[in-house]
Amino acid sequence: MADELEGLLFPGSVAVVGASSAPGKIGHALFSNVAQSFSGPVFAVNPGYRELRGRPCVPEISDIPEPVDLAVIVIPAAMVPGVLEECGQLGIKNAIVISGGFKEAGCEGAQLEAKLVEIAGRHSINLLGPNCLGLISTQAGLNATFAPGGARPGEIAFLSQSGAFCTAVLDWAWKAQLGFSHFISLGNKAVLSEEDFLEAFVHDPRTKVVAAYLEGVKDGQRFLRTAREVTAFKPVVVIKSGRAEAGARAVSSHTGSLAGSDRAYEAAFRQAGVIRARNVEELFDFAYMLARQAVPKGKRVGIVTNAGGPGVMATDAVEMEGLEVARFTENTARALAEGMPPAASIYNPVDILGDARAGRYREAVRLVTADPNVDMVVALSAPVAILTYAELAAILAEARREHEKPVACSFMVGELGEEAESILREAGIPSAFDPARAVRAVSGLVRYADIRRAPRQEPGEYPVDRERAAAVLAEAKRRDRVRLGVEAMGLLEAYGIATARGALARSPEEVERALLDLGESVVLKLVSPDMSHKSDVGGVRVGVPADKAAEEAWHMLNMAQARFPEMPIDGILVQEHLSPGVEVIVGMVRDPTFGPLVMFGLGGVHVEVMGDVAFAVAPLSRVEAERLVRSIRAYPVLRGVRGQPGIDVDGLVEVLERLSQAAVEFPELLELEANPIMCYPHRVLAVDLRLTVSGEG
Amino acid sequence: MADELEGLLFPGSVAVVGASSAPGKIGHALFSNVAQSFSGPVFAVNPGYRELRGRPCVPEISDIPEPVDLAVIVIPAAMVPGVLEECGQLGIKNAIVISGGFKEAGCEGAQLEAKLVEIAGRHSINLLGPNCLGLISTQAGLNATFAPGGARPGEIAFLSQSGAFCTAVLDWAWKAQLGFSHFISLGNKAVLSEEDFLEAFVHDPRTKVVAAYLEGVKDGQRFLRTAREVTAFKPVVVIKSGRAEAGARAVSSHTGSLAGSDRAYEAAFRQAGVIRARNVEELFDFAYMLARQAVPKGKRVGIVTNAGGPGVMATDAVEMEGLEVARFTENTARALAEGMPPAASIYNPVDILGDARAGRYREAVRLVTADPNVDMVVALSAPVAILTYAELAAILAEARREHEKPVACSFMVGELGEEAESILREAGIPSAFDPARAVRAVSGLVRYADIRRAPRQEPGEYPVDRERAAAVLAEAKRRDRVRLGVEAMGLLEAYGIATARGALARSPEEVERALLDLGESVVLKLVSPDMSHKSDVGGVRVGVPADKAAEEAWHMLNMAQARFPEMPIDGILVQEHLSPGVEVIVGMVRDPTFGPLVMFGLGGVHVEVMGDVAFAVAPLSRVEAERLVRSIRAYPVLRGVRGQPGIDVDGLVEVLERLSQAAVEFPELLELEANPIMCYPHRVLAVDLRLTVSGEG
Repeated sequence: MADELEGLLFPGSVAVVGASSAPGKIGHALFSNVAQSFSGPVFAVNPGYRELRGRPCVPEISDIPEPVDLAVIVIPAAMVPGVLEECGQLGIKNAIVISGGFKEAGCEGAQLEAKLVEIAGRHSINLLGPNCLGLISTQAGLNATFAPGGARPGEIAFLSQSGAFCTAVLDWAWKAQLGFSHFISLGNKAVLSEEDFLEAFVHDPRTKVVAAYLEGVKDGQRFLRTAREVTAFKPVVVIKSGRAEAGARAVSSHTGSLAGSDRAYEAAFRQAGVIRARNVEELFDFAYMLARQAVPKGKRVGIVTNAGGPGVMATDAVEMEGLEVARFTENTARALAEGMPPAASIYNPVDILGDARAGRYREAVRLVTADPNVDMVVALSAPVAILTYAELAAILAEARREHEKPVACSFMVGELGEEAESILREAGIPSAFDPARAVRAVSGLVRYADIRRAPRQEPGEYPVDRERAAAVLAEAKRRDRVRLGVEAMGLLEAYGIATARGALARSPEEVERALLDLGESVVLKLVSPDMSHKSDVGGVRVGVPADKAAEEAWHMLNMAQARFPEMPIDGILVQEHLSPGVEVIVGMVRDPTFGPLVMFGLGGVHVEVMGDVAFAVAPLSRVEAERLVRSIRAYPVLRGVRGQPGIDVDGLVEVLERLSQAAVEFPELLELEANPIMCYPHRVLAVDLRLTVSGEG
Repeated sequence: MADELEGLLFPGSVAVVGASSAPGKIGHALFSNVAQSFSGPVFAVNPGYRELRGRPCVPEISDIPEPVDLAVIVIPAAMVPGVLEECGQLGIKNAIVISGGFKEAGCEGAQLEAKLVEIAGRHSINLLGPNCLGLISTQAGLNATFAPGGARPGEIAFLSQSGAFCTAVLDWAWKAQLGFSHFISLGNKAVLSEEDFLEAFVHDPRTKVVAAYLEGVKDGQRFLRTAREVTAFKPVVVIKSGRAEAGARAVSSHTGSLAGSDRAYEAAFRQAGVIRARNVEELFDFAYMLARQAVPKGKRVGIVTNAGGPGVMATDAVEMEGLEVARFTENTARALAEGMPPAASIYNPVDILGDARAGRYREAVRLVTADPNVDMVVALSAPVAILTYAELAAILAEARREHEKPVACSFMVGELGEEAESILREAGIPSAFDPARAVRAVSGLVRYADIRRAPRQEPGEYPVDRERAAAVLAEAKRRDRVRLGVEAMGLLEAYGIATARGALARSPEEVERALLDLGESVVLKLVSPDMSHKSDVGGVRVGVPADKAAEEAWHMLNMAQARFPEMPIDGILVQEHLSPGVEVIVGMVRDPTFGPLVMFGLGGVHVEVMGDVAFAVAPLSRVEAERLVRSIRAYPVLRGVRGQPGIDVDGLVEVLERLSQAAVEFPELLELEANPIMCYPHRVLAVDLRLTVSGEG
């Protein structure tokens, strides 16, 4: 798709359908922008004019005498399908529909939008919008938006699902002198969506970072795949709004109640290497730094300051952002001791004191930046009369040039002055009044460095007994059951997940047979699709002596039938009585956007009360499954604490991988929870199971 | 003390000792500031001049012909004690020592500083500094700093332990037009510290909020007491730097390893109602809002926007800051439905659409602000051609005036323009490009509202057997023991904390005697001050049948003596074997700044692995002890989960109060940990104990 967007992002000629000369009209603003910005052929289409702003104006798009690469359409919604069809017939492969009145406007609009999708599909048209502000490609010199201002050239490709946010960012970024390679208002995403643009930007040499405001992604699995590819080459920073959105799904397990749309996004972003910004400030602080500076080798920060207080603030921020205060080499320490006055602090943060002039500042910055133990530098300065911020800016610009390490600064002053600002801008060094914000800027680079370094792996595929698993689900369907319990443990076994030994018994004789090899005491579980009554009748007995098992089982069965005559009972599961181990829960729900979402947590109060769980989108690669296991707070329990041995973490990781594979291979599995899974030093056994299957299909 | 600072903050006359006419000298900058700003009598003291800037200059401070309220001293450190002594003899009760070269400069300086403290104490001089920038009192019209700029009048009293940060803030605030009532550089805090100024500000009618940058507090308990009094009347917002500071104390318990200086500050701030800002931006965002706007009744936010995207961002921020999106009354919903166009969203956030002119904006803001379900309003606006930001600012100013509810806005634009800015400033309404920052501004008000509403209670005092407790500690001292174990359980009993029944036995006969009433099985614990060997020899046996206890105890004793002949052994504790319950840990360490710091957490992996603990500074009031118990993540476990009954939470709270009382009454208790304390539905019993007592005294 990357090359396919060439004509949209770098058109050779542009037609504006609905161009107007009436100020206040969108068609006027849009055409003015296109005509003013674009050096290639521009055509206006409007039956009311023969000429507009000195450009030819034709009644119909088919009247344009030359081939057109891009049609920008700004006419009433009802007329758009006709024009788009015409574009298709004319071989125009790229269109931006600015007009609103589609899906966002209700049922009729949605039908119109469906028509656009159909036409674009039939003619292979790259369609941006509808209901958008348009796009700006500073490289193509094209402003195809109706915004009052334009964008400066730069290294950030910006995508936004909110047109209003686009307008706001354009205005603010112009004043802040922040530049963009591409600036895209996604609108309703009828055809082209974030995934297409991500693909297009990955090989765009001018785009150093992708920054996006998203309210949702169109195709979760494709987004994950695409974003993962992109982040191997360049960073992607996203504000995903709608954190608060309530999950509206039927819930029959802990997994279900803890999963939610935002959990899925959080997991997908982590897996795809997308950096999630918490707010607008962070989005652009990160994007600026990532666009302008190189990724550091590590996370060790060197701090140079002319005042103690700000130095401590920066140190705190380093800690809070998960970075490290660098320890200088002996050489650096010695050179600082020689070069700085005795009262200076030569340890990190280096406090060169308030009487430091430019020379001392330069020397300290030079020594700290050159230190091999320093991965990046944060320079601070409270205002002093003997030093100008322009001098300081030049010192930092020089250090950055020489050492190619990231540099950010906090010049703690009301206004920097144009000279200092332009030096910093030229050097790509951000400055903030707040030392914490300077540290946060470099932290964005470190986050991306970690993403780049993280091993990338394709999910593996275990040889499994798919037929047996299918048979378990088919049996459920045959019996018209949607919710299954231990009777479906065969599904886990089919996927190579070990389960506690046991057998379903329907008579005292079958109980006796089941008892063979299960040891001195067993567990009895009433098997019934009726979950609520099962617990009412005490459907689980633990530690029943083997010689009393048949009797107890019979009693359990009779009790249940006596109390709830209507209750369907499959029998009694006679299961081995396991010794105590570490109980974990592995679950799966199907997210409407991302598909199968796997959950992991420790049993007992950890999941239910503490909410100490982690999620990942399936399919899981080995490293993703490992990360999932490691990412709960209680992870040390699995490695062994308080004199307990650790459990078979590798075996557990494999269970997660296998379960993820089952979730992917059987889309009718809507929700699943293996709880508990008993973990021991050398084995991992599923003991109980609940799952919900789709009634369809 | 409040009134006592009157002469420092509102002097009638000022002398500058060390005033100079040489530009570049601190004595010059300082005297210029004082002379330019202050309308009362100003005297220069310097043997080199007879007149300075048209003011009389005398060789010695004693030569000043009139009484002087405040002496500002900026002469070499070594000369300061002499001048201060002279001030004392002249009856000058207030002094600011600007000069550096004291404690911050090493040993000799520290001796000089000690002299200042002695002189100030003897003459009851309010001494600010040394080593500070000075102070500005905009109310007194006095700038007694050597900063290049001054401060505008305002409602924020500012304290800073960093002089450089003072200079930075002055410059930035001047540009940002942020005003101060008082602006204080604390310097070395030899005499006056944050506590004194907090006391002074509490009744200062012009100070609406105290904002401070602190690297530490001088007297933890006094700070806690004072700040608690102040925050009942006005908010205190603090950046406390040095989060990362490693605790450097000997550690012999979980409590010790988890406690740290920052934990103590965090606890003290919470108990005192001090709002802790994470960074400079937050400090001033909170301070501005708290200075200018009223505290809201609740935390329900009404949002008005002319664009969907920013509305969603604000909603997310509301969620992240722990606020609530308001649900409008039916009246409001109806009025909005009537007043807004059909495509508008009339639910919160109210999206009045991009084509809204001032009239529609005013109507929406008016309806939302007036709604009784709305406690505060956040107004957003993306740039549109049909609406100026000055109009919007006026609409918000009007709404704020009419309804006295907090209002913040995010006008998403590069530059607001002077007209809009001055209207907002006049109305005390903050604006930020980022919607999340506007929400954060109101969240500061809600945090203070919660602090104001929280019940304030004095710690109670339980009748306890202090003599018995003292005897336990005296016995330890007599035996030259610093670390004690179960043998010190009498201390808990003396403080009315129930303990598991049991008795120390030194012979089989004593074991038999101890067994009476302990039931069918017991616990045996080897009692020895030698903790490490105790576990090596398996010094604890649980569930020993009563009829075998004497034999087992004897065996345990012999084994220990055989393996470690040098090991001192007190005997065997024969303890009742408790049924399973919820295990909690209550601990105490002595913080160098705040004194006794009480820790609470759940046993098992919760404290050790999950770090799920909470701290509070003793003495604890009932409500503080309750809050401590409630504030761990695992709190629901205490209320009962997974079919388990809840525990006696009131009893547990009382244990915390009693233990806090012991910690306060016995300063020789350095560290203590009751672990576990077994909790049941109707009782709470301490089972084991470790404590460290001071070797001194």
